[in-house]
Amino acid sequence: MAVNRKWVLASRPVGMPTLENFRLEEAPVPVPGEGELLLRTLWLSLDPYMRGRMSAAKSYAQPVEIGGTMVGGTVARVEASNAPGFQPGDIVQCMNGWQDYAVAHPKAVVKLDPNAFPPTLALGTLGMPGLTAFVGLMDIGEPKAGETVVVSAASGAVGSVVGQLAKARGCRAVGIAGGKDKCDYVVNELGFDVCVDHKAPDFQEQLKAACPQGIDVYFENVGGKVGDACIALLNAFGRVPVCGRIANYNDTELPPGPDRMGLLLTQVLAKRLRLQGFIVSERWHRMGAFHEEAIPLIRSGKLKYREDVSEGLESAPEAFFGLLEGRNFGKLLVKVAD
Amino acid sequence: MAVNRKWVLASRPVGMPTLENFRLEEAPVPVPGEGELLLRTLWLSLDPYMRGRMSAAKSYAQPVEIGGTMVGGTVARVEASNAPGFQPGDIVQCMNGWQDYAVAHPKAVVKLDPNAFPPTLALGTLGMPGLTAFVGLMDIGEPKAGETVVVSAASGAVGSVVGQLAKARGCRAVGIAGGKDKCDYVVNELGFDVCVDHKAPDFQEQLKAACPQGIDVYFENVGGKVGDACIALLNAFGRVPVCGRIANYNDTELPPGPDRMGLLLTQVLAKRLRLQGFIVSERWHRMGAFHEEAIPLIRSGKLKYREDVSEGLESAPEAFFGLLEGRNFGKLLVKVAD
Repeated sequence: MAVNRKWVLASRPVGMPTLENFRLEEAPVPVPGEGELLLRTLWLSLDPYMRGRMSAAKSYAQPVEIGGTMVGGTVARVEASNAPGFQPGDIVQCMNGWQDYAVAHPKAVVKLDPNAFPPTLALGTLGMPGLTAFVGLMDIGEPKAGETVVVSAASGAVGSVVGQLAKARGCRAVGIAGGKDKCDYVVNELGFDVCVDHKAPDFQEQLKAACPQGIDVYFENVGGKVGDACIALLNAFGRVPVCGRIANYNDTELPPGPDRMGLLLTQVLAKRLRLQGFIVSERWHRMGAFHEEAIPLIRSGKLKYREDVSEGLESAPEAFFGLLEGRNFGKLLVKVAD
Repeated sequence: MAVNRKWVLASRPVGMPTLENFRLEEAPVPVPGEGELLLRTLWLSLDPYMRGRMSAAKSYAQPVEIGGTMVGGTVARVEASNAPGFQPGDIVQCMNGWQDYAVAHPKAVVKLDPNAFPPTLALGTLGMPGLTAFVGLMDIGEPKAGETVVVSAASGAVGSVVGQLAKARGCRAVGIAGGKDKCDYVVNELGFDVCVDHKAPDFQEQLKAACPQGIDVYFENVGGKVGDACIALLNAFGRVPVCGRIANYNDTELPPGPDRMGLLLTQVLAKRLRLQGFIVSERWHRMGAFHEEAIPLIRSGKLKYREDVSEGLESAPEAFFGLLEGRNFGKLLVKVAD
């Protein structure tokens, strides 16, 4: 009898998560009820927001419960269908989480056409990360042609789309990434105007040189020292879509002083900045507009992407740690089954 | 022969300004040229932005030069006119600064009808402070009926208008002011739902009790501990029009740690907040819309105001120090001449 392996949250991390916070459990493969589907996970998406779900802290989403299966976006194959319109072998996008099998209602899945695009794009450039880039850049950043748009984690699932959409709108796209390989990729493959290595000892000087006209839109993906350096270079009327703060997700206490919170607010006033946080799950209604813009760009080769594949469900926690440390190169996926 | 007294900037303050930073000079009354007006200052408006103009620090406006006359909004009487359409005795709104007389071009003044409203309203509720309240609240705060709007310096020129406009829009208006007299006035005269004394030892608890549904719009007028307490109570999708940071204007160094700048940005993300700075001088085009809303409210007694008058041009610096310390009660004006 087939077994369903699943990664559950064993304990809540303090700071950086470790293997001890996860436990691989085995259970019977679930049986679909009337109107339901049995789904075999093929691909699991690993994304920074998952760190937040591991904490009990009040946030915009419910935390994963202790003993609960880790959440996550997935691409799956229909193994058995008790629902009209679905056949075994259909490929769907769903939220199975970190496990081999799941039962789902058809309303909770989206059928994919594997002939149109590789199904993994539904977890990356055409999925949640791509939409995140689109709504943050377009709806909050509101870039105008000729402006300078800076994005951190520029080789990643979100950042790569931000910069390429900015280029398509006639902006100067400046990326920030960790290491020469990623920076080369961001410029040579993705077509950003320039990419600065945040590991360089003279990062701040390089960033300033990369933005001779200052920064009009800083798409905040990472926080930490990178975020600080970008905020300092904002022009009057600069916009900061606050999308992620991965550098701070594992912080266990506030950093030492001086306290710059008041300074930031004084800058918001003096430069008439707009800082705005957003959560992609509240903006799914923009998916149509996003696809309308992104699909032609993909077809014409102006919106490129790269995937970083970790093999086997058992590898998920280690791959996730790498994501939190910036060790992935491109959209991080776990290949769960063929 | 008549003398023009003027307060000039003698030196730039470090921290709180003192009398040594000002010098009262005497000069001949200027002579209007072809097409110009000679104006006698009647009222000088004192406002927090003047602290910024005393500093050399780069900002949205040019600093006052050392030896230059302090800037300021004024109401004046035309003493002599070489311009068509202006007669001696006309009352105008202008930017004469801290002095008895000035020469101005008609394009730089607005003629007032003293029979419609007291002319000092052009320096307060119907002028720059009122417009500041309007654009910050309406264009950035975007309050909806039933939401909670909190404003600091609630008995002042800007704060009093913010709360009354919020009430007129069906919001819960919560004021913050210093001392029982001001708080009583804000509730009993201005009609706010409640006003919290920031000098109370249990200020934070009182503020929380005053906002049982949290805060949807925090109109940031003051910064400091009051601002911190309000930001902590913001609801999801809260908006913060950043208008002023008077509590921080005299800071000479950053306060000690911990550093809460990252925490603020994490809150912006987790609560999807919008923080936006603005400068009223970039939004004069909204004056018509503001007057359309405010004038009927003044006529119907729903938009009240209070003026705090300091007698004589010589009193201007001391009155200004009081403004920075919150000692004024209502819109601060200097009566320069009858």
